[in-house]
Amino acid sequence: MEIEVKFRVNFEEAKKKLEVLGARLLRTEEQEDLYFSLPPNELLRIRRIRNLGKTYLTHKLIVDPGRNEEFDEIEVEVSGFEEMRKILRRLGLQEDVLIRKHRLVYRLGDVTFELNRVEGIGEFLDIEVISENPKEAREKIWESARKLGLDENDVEPRLYTELMKEKNG
Amino acid sequence: MEIEVKFRVNFEEAKKKLEVLGARLLRTEEQEDLYFSLPPNELLRIRRIRNLGKTYLTHKLIVDPGRNEEFDEIEVEVSGFEEMRKILRRLGLQEDVLIRKHRLVYRLGDVTFELNRVEGIGEFLDIEVISENPKEAREKIWESARKLGLDENDVEPRLYTELMKEKNG
Repeated sequence: MEIEVKFRVNFEEAKKKLEVLGARLLRTEEQEDLYFSLPPNELLRIRRIRNLGKTYLTHKLIVDPGRNEEFDEIEVEVSGFEEMRKILRRLGLQEDVLIRKHRLVYRLGDVTFELNRVEGIGEFLDIEVISENPKEAREKIWESARKLGLDENDVEPRLYTELMKEKNG
Repeated sequence: MEIEVKFRVNFEEAKKKLEVLGARLLRTEEQEDLYFSLPPNELLRIRRIRNLGKTYLTHKLIVDPGRNEEFDEIEVEVSGFEEMRKILRRLGLQEDVLIRKHRLVYRLGDVTFELNRVEGIGEFLDIEVISENPKEAREKIWESARKLGLDENDVEPRLYTELMKEKNG
């Protein structure tokens, strides 16, 4: 299970705090996420990571709808963004929203920090732990969050897709 | 467009004839093709090539239904068979049939020969040309077929999925 909490942050400030905390920068990603329309509590996306030349197809079941912190995720790498897009369209899936992010990925222990500048939406830090024990994962996430000076008021419970649609809507 | 004609053959005899003809063996494949239920004239399959450690997701539109010689095909390589299978099941697709083939792939000029021993179904030679000119492609295919001693009586117009379902009753 993927457990993650999304916080609204200032990108540059959060970056400094992560480095002070001792988190290690794993990589920089320029992402384009194309989401398809699915029933509520499911997400399907093709992610192109432009600078790495990689593409992924990902399906997520949202285990805690509304709160959006717990996901049962399946992902494969695929050889082509446009080909995958065409196959999904042929299967009758409708394209929903496209989200572009500039992302820095940090790691400290088994906690992953995804610092995002999301085009048209804002700046966010996703703190993530992969675990079959959501309670323990949440404790780890919040321990890191507190060290970065983040609290409940900084949490953004909406999905990026929801934020994008509210902006466009 | 993928243009191909399927012939019923004896595997070993066809192999000898292809080698006499001067076709070059490109590779051997141990394939497992998992097909999903779709409307008529569409095919969706995940192909695992066991000996090469590769997996592909392929969608085909059958351009000439019934005859099954002309296909508009989109294919991507994917990093995992089981993960891809789970994503498609989550999208509501039903698994249809599984087909196992031992395949030798030969090439001569721009003609590809796929010599198949298909588990439970029989032995076949698919002669294939990729072209935007189906008429010209068919001429090339039939020129090769005649050189191999094959004629209209050897053609098998049914899809492997149809043959498998007829066998299973």
